[in-house]
Amino acid sequence: MRKGRKPLPLRKGDVIAVFAPAGPVDPGKLSRGIARLGRAGFVPEIADGVLEKDGYLAGSDAHRAGQANWAFFLPEARAAMAARGGFGTTRLLPLVDWGRFARRPRLVVGYSDVTAILSYLATHLGIPSIHGPMAAADMATRSDGPALTAFRRLASGEVSPRELWGFPCERLHGGAAEGILSGGCLSVLTSLLGTPFEPDFRGALLFLEDVGEPCYRIDRMLTQWIQAGRLRRIAGIVVGKMSPTGGEKEDDLRKVFAEAGRSISVPVWYGFPAGHAGPNYALPFGVRARIDGRGRLFLLESPVAG
Amino acid sequence: MRKGRKPLPLRKGDVIAVFAPAGPVDPGKLSRGIARLGRAGFVPEIADGVLEKDGYLAGSDAHRAGQANWAFFLPEARAAMAARGGFGTTRLLPLVDWGRFARRPRLVVGYSDVTAILSYLATHLGIPSIHGPMAAADMATRSDGPALTAFRRLASGEVSPRELWGFPCERLHGGAAEGILSGGCLSVLTSLLGTPFEPDFRGALLFLEDVGEPCYRIDRMLTQWIQAGRLRRIAGIVVGKMSPTGGEKEDDLRKVFAEAGRSISVPVWYGFPAGHAGPNYALPFGVRARIDGRGRLFLLESPVAG
Repeated sequence: MRKGRKPLPLRKGDVIAVFAPAGPVDPGKLSRGIARLGRAGFVPEIADGVLEKDGYLAGSDAHRAGQANWAFFLPEARAAMAARGGFGTTRLLPLVDWGRFARRPRLVVGYSDVTAILSYLATHLGIPSIHGPMAAADMATRSDGPALTAFRRLASGEVSPRELWGFPCERLHGGAAEGILSGGCLSVLTSLLGTPFEPDFRGALLFLEDVGEPCYRIDRMLTQWIQAGRLRRIAGIVVGKMSPTGGEKEDDLRKVFAEAGRSISVPVWYGFPAGHAGPNYALPFGVRARIDGRGRLFLLESPVAG
Repeated sequence: MRKGRKPLPLRKGDVIAVFAPAGPVDPGKLSRGIARLGRAGFVPEIADGVLEKDGYLAGSDAHRAGQANWAFFLPEARAAMAARGGFGTTRLLPLVDWGRFARRPRLVVGYSDVTAILSYLATHLGIPSIHGPMAAADMATRSDGPALTAFRRLASGEVSPRELWGFPCERLHGGAAEGILSGGCLSVLTSLLGTPFEPDFRGALLFLEDVGEPCYRIDRMLTQWIQAGRLRRIAGIVVGKMSPTGGEKEDDLRKVFAEAGRSISVPVWYGFPAGHAGPNYALPFGVRARIDGRGRLFLLESPVAG
C-alpha cells in the first residue's frame, strides 16, 4: 500500500467540519450530535444545505460533493466528520479533488457508506482516517462513552505504541496477523469492485462489518471478493460484532466468515466492537496493526502526525 | 459477443433435467412444478439429492455442482431447468466443465440466481438460453398460461422471424435499440463484477430486473456498473416489471433507471413482463432482438437450432 502524509492531530478547541455525503440528515439527531461534539470540546461547523433532501440522498451529487469539498478544504477545520451514512458516497468519489486532499490531508471520520472514502484514502492515497462516530448518527443516538473516548484519543494522537485496542476477538480461523487496518462496511466496499475506486487490500488487516444483510448475502459478497482474487494477499480479517437478521443467528454468520477464511487460508477473528451493532469503538484505518493469537488487537502506529 | 452453437429444440416428449444450483427446494412446490411440466408434454427427470439442504443452500458446493453437471451432460436430456433460485449459483461456476458444455450445448432454463449461468453462456460462450420458469418456483406457484406458452414456443423454435414478443414497454430514455438479449437479476449480475465470470455486455440489449431491493440499492448497483465502465457499449436497457419495496413507488424506480440511461446516453425501456413480479414471460438470452421506438420487443432469431 502507498504511504501518504498523516493528518494533523485533532485537539480540544479544534474545528470539525460536518457534511452529508450520503442519505438525508435528521435535524433533531444532527443538533443532538453537534451538541455532544461541543461538550466533548470540539467546535463543529456545519456545511451549508446539510439538511437538503432528494429522495434517499441529501441533495444532488453536485450538492453533496460541494459539501464534501467544503469539509475537506475549509482552512480552519482539522477534521471532516460525516453526518450519517445511507447511500450516495460512491457517487461523490469522482467529484473530489483527491490530489489536493493528499497534499494537505485532514482526518476524515465516519463509517458505513463513508467507508467508500476511508478505504480509498487508506489504499489509494496511504492516508490514515478514523472509522468512527458520525454527527447525526451514533453521536446523537448512542451513549457509549468508551467509544467516544477512543475516538478522542485516536484523533489527538494520544495512543501509546503497541496499545491494546478495544476488546479481544474470537478466533474463527488461523492465528495472529499483522497489516494495514482498512475495510469497513462489506456491502459498500463490494459496490466499489471493478470501479476506479476499488480498494486495493493487498497487505491489509481487513476489518469488515455490515447491517441488515442475511447470511446468504454476506456469503455472496465474500464469494465475489474471493472469486475476483482480491483477498489473495490480505494479512487477515477482523469481523465487527454483527446483528443477524430475521431468524438467523450469530453462529450462522460465524460459519460464513470462517469458511471464507479457510478457503483462502487467511486468519479470521470475530466480534471487534465496531460498526452498526453495539458500541462503535473508533478504529484507525491506514495504519499498521496486529492481532495476536489470543485475538487482541494492538495498534502499531497513530493515525495522526505527531 | 462470441458466437457459439445453438442448443437443439425442446419438443413434447423430450426430457428436461431438473437440478438445484442455489437455495433449498420445497418438496411440495417441486412436485407441483414437475406435474405441470408433465402435463405440458415434457418428461422431467430430477437430480439425485435435489431436496438436500445445508442452511441457505441446496447442499454443499460439490453436491450442487454434481447436480448441475448431471443436468448439463445427461445424454437423454434436451434441456436443464433449475428448480429454484436464491443464492449459490455463483459458487458453482468454477465447478462446471464449460468447454464440454459448449461442444454440445443444451437449453438452460431459469432466472434470478440462475442468471449467473445464463449471462455466462450468452456473453462468454455465445450460447443461447431461456430466461424463464423454474420447476419448484413459478412452475409451481404462478398460473400464467401465456408465460408457459411463451416458454414452450421459444424452446421448440416455433417463433416467427421478427416476432413481436411480450407486451410493449414504456420509454424512460432514448429510443429504439438492437442487440444481443442478455442480463437478468441485477443483484446477481452485480455479484459477478470483477470475477472471471463477469458478463461482458458489450453489444447487449440488457434485460434487468430484481426483487426486494430498495431504490438506493438499485442506484448503488447501477452506479457500480457505470463507474466500472461496463455499460459503455451496451445497445440499451430493458427493465422488467418490478415491485417496489417498503414505501417506495414504481415511479421512484423509474427515476433511478431513467437517470442511469441519461448519464450513459443509452435507451432505457421499462416494464417488460418478466422476472420476479407479475407474469414471468420467457425471454431468449444470447439472441439478437430489437426494441422499437414504441417499446415493442421483436425477436430477430430463435434460441434453438433448426
